[in-house]
Amino acid sequence: MGGYEKGESPAEGGVILGVDGGTTNTVCVCLPAAMPPPDSPSAVPVLSRAIAGCSNRNSVGESAALETLEQVMTQALAMANTDRSAVRAVCLAVSGVNHPSDQQRMLDWIRDLFPGHAKFYVENDAVAALASGTMGKLHGCVLIAGTGSIAYGVTEDGKVARAAGAGPVLGDWGSGYGIAAQALTAVIKAYDGRGPHTNLTREILRKLELSSPDELIGWTYADPSWARIAALVPVVVSSADDGDEVANKILHDSVQELADSVVAVVRRLTLCGEGHGKDKFPLVLVGGVLEGNKKWNISGEVVRCISKVFPGVHPIRPEVEPAIGAALLAWSHHRKGLKLENGS
Amino acid sequence: MGGYEKGESPAEGGVILGVDGGTTNTVCVCLPAAMPPPDSPSAVPVLSRAIAGCSNRNSVGESAALETLEQVMTQALAMANTDRSAVRAVCLAVSGVNHPSDQQRMLDWIRDLFPGHAKFYVENDAVAALASGTMGKLHGCVLIAGTGSIAYGVTEDGKVARAAGAGPVLGDWGSGYGIAAQALTAVIKAYDGRGPHTNLTREILRKLELSSPDELIGWTYADPSWARIAALVPVVVSSADDGDEVANKILHDSVQELADSVVAVVRRLTLCGEGHGKDKFPLVLVGGVLEGNKKWNISGEVVRCISKVFPGVHPIRPEVEPAIGAALLAWSHHRKGLKLENGS
Repeated sequence: MGGYEKGESPAEGGVILGVDGGTTNTVCVCLPAAMPPPDSPSAVPVLSRAIAGCSNRNSVGESAALETLEQVMTQALAMANTDRSAVRAVCLAVSGVNHPSDQQRMLDWIRDLFPGHAKFYVENDAVAALASGTMGKLHGCVLIAGTGSIAYGVTEDGKVARAAGAGPVLGDWGSGYGIAAQALTAVIKAYDGRGPHTNLTREILRKLELSSPDELIGWTYADPSWARIAALVPVVVSSADDGDEVANKILHDSVQELADSVVAVVRRLTLCGEGHGKDKFPLVLVGGVLEGNKKWNISGEVVRCISKVFPGVHPIRPEVEPAIGAALLAWSHHRKGLKLENGS
Repeated sequence: MGGYEKGESPAEGGVILGVDGGTTNTVCVCLPAAMPPPDSPSAVPVLSRAIAGCSNRNSVGESAALETLEQVMTQALAMANTDRSAVRAVCLAVSGVNHPSDQQRMLDWIRDLFPGHAKFYVENDAVAALASGTMGKLHGCVLIAGTGSIAYGVTEDGKVARAAGAGPVLGDWGSGYGIAAQALTAVIKAYDGRGPHTNLTREILRKLELSSPDELIGWTYADPSWARIAALVPVVVSSADDGDEVANKILHDSVQELADSVVAVVRRLTLCGEGHGKDKFPLVLVGGVLEGNKKWNISGEVVRCISKVFPGVHPIRPEVEPAIGAALLAWSHHRKGLKLENGS
């Protein structure tokens, strides 16, 4: 958190807030508005970091979501020894914000909380993940594959496109949930005698401490939470590593699904450039499914698939969390504004 | 309800109860114990029919399920102008009864409700559906494809096997839910630009009164009940009838899934006989997905697929409801018991 001389308050010159609001939790970070452009992700001078619960309005309702957002921002400001009057810009990147009307309601709400001169940006949480890889620049595509999956792209002139991210009913088969549900289905099919033998049976039953595949029915009905099912992904990856054909097929299919969703977004936004279509563009890779450091490298395979279509793909693994991406986004907007005001 | 002479009470000689307990509702029918073997399904002399709510213990808990079962049986007896003392045999065929321990607990419960000499049978609800097609004989396979799907088989010496029926997480892709979820996925993929154009988009949006595929996300999250999603099956069938390739592929894949589940059960139980494997066996077909009277005949295609493997398949569409199947099952057990007692 260096870069400041002794005696100088880091919050002097105001602060920037970046919020990554998800279904599991909500993170808010506070940066000094006057910080110089960071040389590297690790050089971002974070003043404070606060954490709260779910702020997805689809999960907890709008008023509970807004309460959580207010609480986490208030806490981050207090931890940085400052208050709302110091806030220069805020980026709220919140899951469940999909339509312009959601965005507008949230903008109206946040404007009432802060001083009149501050700037506000409300985005989908995928945008924070993108910015965490591009250091605040809004250009490129992000692929998030955790419990769910989504591909989200933005162009420099503000066009956006998404693919997948519609949840399990609508076929996010590349997601952690999708991979694990396919593995469970393969176990049931083998048990029924309508699918090939797979070592997934032994490995999944061992992991869940069950004695027979028919107990899986009770297990899934007992609590069908997507994250609980997605937690089986490491078992699928290790079974594939050990050569299980069924597990390998599931992972290959999922790689194709994930690659297809990125290709669709890149194509719609022409991120690869007009003409030969070989322009370089950033692809930020985020989420548990893409963090494989096993033999079976899911993100490596996804990039390989995409590069067959768009050789300019430039994969990036963010070194900072999405909340910092959101803060960098607000900071770079704020900085551009200052430059314009100063005529520079 | 004929077959009785004037002045004779139909309940004289006792009664039989058959209960079909499902997640949507529970039906109980009352038959005279002394009825002769019915010549045809329409000749079954039903004394009364009562209906109540859900009796699936996995949905409403054990005590509520038992209360519903007691209530529906009491009501059926009252409607037949008789009471518990007249009951000779009861078959409870209840969804959610999968393990011998479930069965035993329910048997213990029902024995306390009725006179000591009555006989009791507790089965999975699939057994009632089978018996509704075989007129009470327990031999063959039933394929149920409504919101969910299951293949369930029984042999004359009491062996049972099932396939599928594990719910959407565990991949019941031949079910109504499975067909509709695949159709919704196809619409999202086409909209994202990662799947072929399909008329399902226009037809499903029209049916749901939505204006854009991205509204489907909100629609599915608003209420992910399986039955609500499965209600889209007729749209898929009519789109396939009209030549849509995506809809046709979904139905063909689902036919294969359904046929595979029957084939697995028939193989495990050797219902097709030892040796050449061409013995005749009944396949009872039940549920909304199999009731197609459109150009696209799902049940006809399923039977065609199965007959390639097992030419002895004999498809039956039940003419009576599963509760009557359950009652016929109890009645035929009761009748065998009488014959044994009489030494005939």
